[in-house]
Amino acid sequence: MIVLSLDTSTPTIFLALYRDGKHYSMKYKGHEKHAVRLAPLLDYFLKTVGVSPKDIDLFGIGIGPGGLTGLRIGIATVIGMASPFNKPIVPVPSFHLMVLSFPLDGRIAVVRKARKGFFYCGIYDKKNSEIREISLPSVISEEDLSQRIKKEKMFVIGDGIGKFGYKDYLEISGEVLIGETLRREDEKVSYYEIKPLYIQKSIAEMKLKGELS
Amino acid sequence: MIVLSLDTSTPTIFLALYRDGKHYSMKYKGHEKHAVRLAPLLDYFLKTVGVSPKDIDLFGIGIGPGGLTGLRIGIATVIGMASPFNKPIVPVPSFHLMVLSFPLDGRIAVVRKARKGFFYCGIYDKKNSEIREISLPSVISEEDLSQRIKKEKMFVIGDGIGKFGYKDYLEISGEVLIGETLRREDEKVSYYEIKPLYIQKSIAEMKLKGELS
Repeated sequence: MIVLSLDTSTPTIFLALYRDGKHYSMKYKGHEKHAVRLAPLLDYFLKTVGVSPKDIDLFGIGIGPGGLTGLRIGIATVIGMASPFNKPIVPVPSFHLMVLSFPLDGRIAVVRKARKGFFYCGIYDKKNSEIREISLPSVISEEDLSQRIKKEKMFVIGDGIGKFGYKDYLEISGEVLIGETLRREDEKVSYYEIKPLYIQKSIAEMKLKGELS
Repeated sequence: MIVLSLDTSTPTIFLALYRDGKHYSMKYKGHEKHAVRLAPLLDYFLKTVGVSPKDIDLFGIGIGPGGLTGLRIGIATVIGMASPFNKPIVPVPSFHLMVLSFPLDGRIAVVRKARKGFFYCGIYDKKNSEIREISLPSVISEEDLSQRIKKEKMFVIGDGIGKFGYKDYLEISGEVLIGETLRREDEKVSYYEIKPLYIQKSIAEMKLKGELS
């Protein structure tokens, strides 16, 4: 069985492949948009590992929360590989990938920059690679987030968190990407059903509805 | 100024490039030897970023501790790029790279598998990206290491640490690779002076001297 999983919910591209009990992974962080970099990087990764897209049995994709354009590029790319042979795709919440990749157990908040003055925040308890959701990803104001971080003892990972006294840390390990894809295999869907995890309206949508000036 | 830094002290290849204030990084983990994979990966990385080896002003290389063959491949590759124009190379201790890439402050032990029954271990205090060496990397028996880990409250990162109740975690961030190269710029040496950090005799050497059966 060959599994390919990827995540484009952050500025970094995370790729992972599993074949015959072996894990391969690649990560790239630059300044090009995912639209420019993802396809050639994936092509190089698959050639390096010696796998053709048609040989992949199962796909995994990080569905966010995160940058909507990057997420869409990742999802479109997986659809492009999965649709010709109608191969299944497993949607994986990106915050789970980050929590599971964090090296320590305990209460972990994943915080990502959303629109100005707001953050995506999800809170989890992790023990021995088991995750319990304490607070599902939602959009929270900087002020509310700041209070929650002060009140509660937890690890805080993510980006834009310098103002709360933490350093940016956004990592997804290849083993976790593959592991979560396989663990959630019964949640697999067809390529036409896959979509990003929307937890806020897009700015364009809000402008259209007059909620944003 | 263009800086290229890499680390091959672990099974993962870490590459980082800095140009005009911008950071680029790539990471690959597979099952090929560094001797097979490093050169083509580096070539792809430099082409992706659009840099020719001759344009690089400064090189950084993780000198270990770690797998000696992998370290030598990394060092030989950097020498290959630095020697034609006699560009300087900054040797960087790999354990410092791992400690600085770890997302939390505190006392941190880096533990790597050495020969059977033994580990490399270095212990550090980290605060705000400043490192204090508590115990320089040395070879320590499993028993001594186990006692030290039980006695002292610290984060333990590395590989082969499952028996001490920790999960393997070996990460080096691109920003840290470049940051340490630049911070140590006045420790730069010529290509003919660079060598890996030996902290144990090679098994061949020990056999030769009759210290190992």
